[in-house]
Amino acid sequence: MNFNVAVIPGDGIGPEVTEQAVLVLEKIGELYNHSFNFTEVLAGGSAYDLKGTPLPQETIDICKNSDAVLLGAVGGPKWDNLPGNLRPEKGLLQIRKELGLYANIRPAVLFDPLKEACPLKPELIEGGFDICVVRELTGGMYFGEKGRKETDMGMAAYDTELYSEPEVDRIVRKAFEIARKRNNKVTNIDKMNVLESSRLWREVVNKTYEEYSDVTLNHLLVDNAAMQLIRDPKQFDVIVTTNMFGDILSDEASMLTGSIGMLPSASLGEGKFGLYEPIHGSAPDIAGQDKANPLATILSTAMMLRFSFDLEKEAKAIEDAVLKVLSEGYRTKDIYSKGTNLVGLKEMGRLVVSFC
Amino acid sequence: MNFNVAVIPGDGIGPEVTEQAVLVLEKIGELYNHSFNFTEVLAGGSAYDLKGTPLPQETIDICKNSDAVLLGAVGGPKWDNLPGNLRPEKGLLQIRKELGLYANIRPAVLFDPLKEACPLKPELIEGGFDICVVRELTGGMYFGEKGRKETDMGMAAYDTELYSEPEVDRIVRKAFEIARKRNNKVTNIDKMNVLESSRLWREVVNKTYEEYSDVTLNHLLVDNAAMQLIRDPKQFDVIVTTNMFGDILSDEASMLTGSIGMLPSASLGEGKFGLYEPIHGSAPDIAGQDKANPLATILSTAMMLRFSFDLEKEAKAIEDAVLKVLSEGYRTKDIYSKGTNLVGLKEMGRLVVSFC
Ligand SMILES: CC(C)[C@H](C(=O)O)[C@@H](O)C(=O)O
Ligand SMILES: CC(C)[C@H](C(=O)O)[C@@H](O)C(=O)O
Repeated sequence: MNFNVAVIPGDGIGPEVTEQAVLVLEKIGELYNHSFNFTEVLAGGSAYDLKGTPLPQETIDICKNSDAVLLGAVGGPKWDNLPGNLRPEKGLLQIRKELGLYANIRPAVLFDPLKEACPLKPELIEGGFDICVVRELTGGMYFGEKGRKETDMGMAAYDTELYSEPEVDRIVRKAFEIARKRNNKVTNIDKMNVLESSRLWREVVNKTYEEYSDVTLNHLLVDNAAMQLIRDPKQFDVIVTTNMFGDILSDEASMLTGSIGMLPSASLGEGKFGLYEPIHGSAPDIAGQDKANPLATILSTAMMLRFSFDLEKEAKAIEDAVLKVLSEGYRTKDIYSKGTNLVGLKEMGRLVVSFC
Repeated sequence: MNFNVAVIPGDGIGPEVTEQAVLVLEKIGELYNHSFNFTEVLAGGSAYDLKGTPLPQETIDICKNSDAVLLGAVGGPKWDNLPGNLRPEKGLLQIRKELGLYANIRPAVLFDPLKEACPLKPELIEGGFDICVVRELTGGMYFGEKGRKETDMGMAAYDTELYSEPEVDRIVRKAFEIARKRNNKVTNIDKMNVLESSRLWREVVNKTYEEYSDVTLNHLLVDNAAMQLIRDPKQFDVIVTTNMFGDILSDEASMLTGSIGMLPSASLGEGKFGLYEPIHGSAPDIAGQDKANPLATILSTAMMLRFSFDLEKEAKAIEDAVLKVLSEGYRTKDIYSKGTNLVGLKEMGRLVVSFC
C-alpha cells in the first residue's frame, strides 16, 4: 500500500529523532511491501525563523493532504520572548486545531527492561502498569476566549475553560472505544465539586456511558487523581480528561514510568488521519549531538501504523524491535544505567532497523 | 494571653479530629499560661442538614470575631447530589472568600520516622524533603464567572480563570516572605506558554521579585512541575502557584510524603488571622470509629500558634510531641507498618497531650 506522511522535524532534537523514525518506516516499507512518501514541512520556531510564522499555510495544506503526520518537537529558549501568537507552541496548538485532532492518546507504560528507572518503589509497580491517557486536545482553556481587561481589582488577564456537550461526547466515546480494546476500564477525571464545566463534563460522561455499559467507569476529582497515580498506578487502564488536566496528569503519569524518552503519542480526530509525536520536548541543550533517544518517535510511528494505516502486524514489528534493543542492553544516555551498553541516537536507530 | 478560636468540626471524621486538637491546645494553654476560648460553629454538610445552607451567616460572624479558625473537614457522599451552591464544599470556598484568606500554605514534609511510607525509592529522598506550597486561594477559576450557555457547538458550560495584578502580587509576596524564613528559594509554577492569565501572572512574579532579589527564583511550567515533583522533590523549597494548579500539585506533593494523615495547612490573609485545617478530607467511611489520624489537625494547631498567635515555642512543643509519639513507634491505622504500635484516634491524642 501507498501512504503519504507529512514530516514536521521542528526544533531542537526534533530533526534528528524524526530522521531515525523515517528510516525505521522505510525499513518496514521494504519488509512488508508498502511505500511511504515523506514530505518535510515547517512548524514551530524554525518555521518562525524562516517564514515569520510558527505555522505556515503550506504546512497546513500539505498535512491536510497526507494520510498522517509525524512530528518531532517544537520550542526552545531562543523563541521565549516572542508574543503568544508567534511562539513555537502556538504552531503546535494551531495545527491540532486546524486538523481537528481532538483526542490525544498518551500511553504511560512501564517497559520491563527499564523498570529500575521507575521512581516508585518496586512493591508499588509489581507486574508493571499500562495507563492510556485520553486527553481532550482542541478545547478548554487552551482555546477559550482569553485576554486582558481592567477590573475592580486592577488590570487582569483571563482564559476561559469552556466545554460543549458534543465536544465532551466525542472524546469520551474515544476513551470507551479504546478501553474496549484494552482492559475495559475508564476513569473520568474532573473537578465537578468546583467547576461548572466539570459538572457538564461529568453529566455527558454518564450519559454517553449508557451506550458503553459493558465498560467499567469510575470518576475521580483531579486533585485526588494526582495522588492516586502515585499511590497505585496499577488501578488505571484508560483515563479520560480535559485538555488542561490531561496536560498535567499525562506528564505526571509518564514520569512514573521513568522513561519519558520512550513514550509516544497520537492525536486523532474523526476518521483515520492522525498526528504522531513523542511526548518529550525539543531538548535544545542536547540538540545535534547524537545523544537524544529516538525511541519515543520510533514508537510513535508504530502508533501511526496501527491507528492511521490499520497495519497492526507492522506496528507490532516496530514495538518488538524496540523491546529487543532494550532487552539486549542498548541504552541512550537518558535511560542508561550501570551495566548496560551506552549508544548514540544514530546507533540506536540503526539497531531498531536491524531488529525489525 | 487570651485567644478566641472558632472551631468548625464539619463532617465525617472532622468532629473527632478537631476534638483531639482542642485537647492539645488546652494542654498547651495550661503549660504556658494562655487561655483559648473555643466556639463551635457549623459549616459543610452538617450545616446544610441543620440550617439548609453549607455556611450560615452566624458562622461567618463568629469566625470574623475570632483570632483564628480551626476546621476539621467537610463533605461526603450524602450531599453529592445537591446543586453546586448548596454543596458542603461551597461552604468551604465561601468561608475562604468571606474571610479574605488568599494564601493557602501547605507544607509537604517527609517525617523521618515515617519515611518507609514514602512511595518513592529511597535514593530519591535521601536526607528527606521539605516543600512548602503557597497556593492562591480566593481567585482563579474557583471564583471566576461561570455558567452555562448555548454555543455554535451546542450547550456548553464555562469557568473563567482570571487573575488581577494585585491578586498575584500579594500571594507572590507571601511566598517570598515565607522563603526568607526557610531556604530562600521560590519556584513559580504557571502555564505561560498557553494561558494569558499565566503570562500576566509571570510578569507580576518577575516585577515583585525586584523587591526580593535576595531570594532565588525559578519558573516551571505546570506539566513539567508535575514531573519534577516526582523526579526530584528535594529541588523545591517554596512553590507558588494558582488556586487550580495548587490544588493539584499540593495533593501530588503530599502523596509523595506517604503520610497525608499527617499534613496540616494554614489559610492566611492580611494580618494575623488564619484558618487552619488538615489537608486530608472527611473520610466518611471511617467516621466515628476512633480510627482516624488526628495528627494533621493537631499539627494545624501548631501552625495556628506560630502564624496567628506568634507563639513559636508553643508551636514547637506540639511538633516535638508529635515527632516523639512517632519515634516511640505509635501509629494510627493509616500510617501503621509492621513492628509499630497500632493505636486509635483518642489514644493518639492522649499521647500527644502527655508528651507536650
Ligand atoms: C508545548 C505545549 C503547548 C503542549 C501542551 O501544553 O499541550 C505540550 O506541553 C504538550 O503536552 O503537548
Ligand atoms: C473540597 C475542595 C473544594 C477543596 C479545593 O479544591 O480547594 C479541597 O480539594 C482543598 O484542596 O482544600
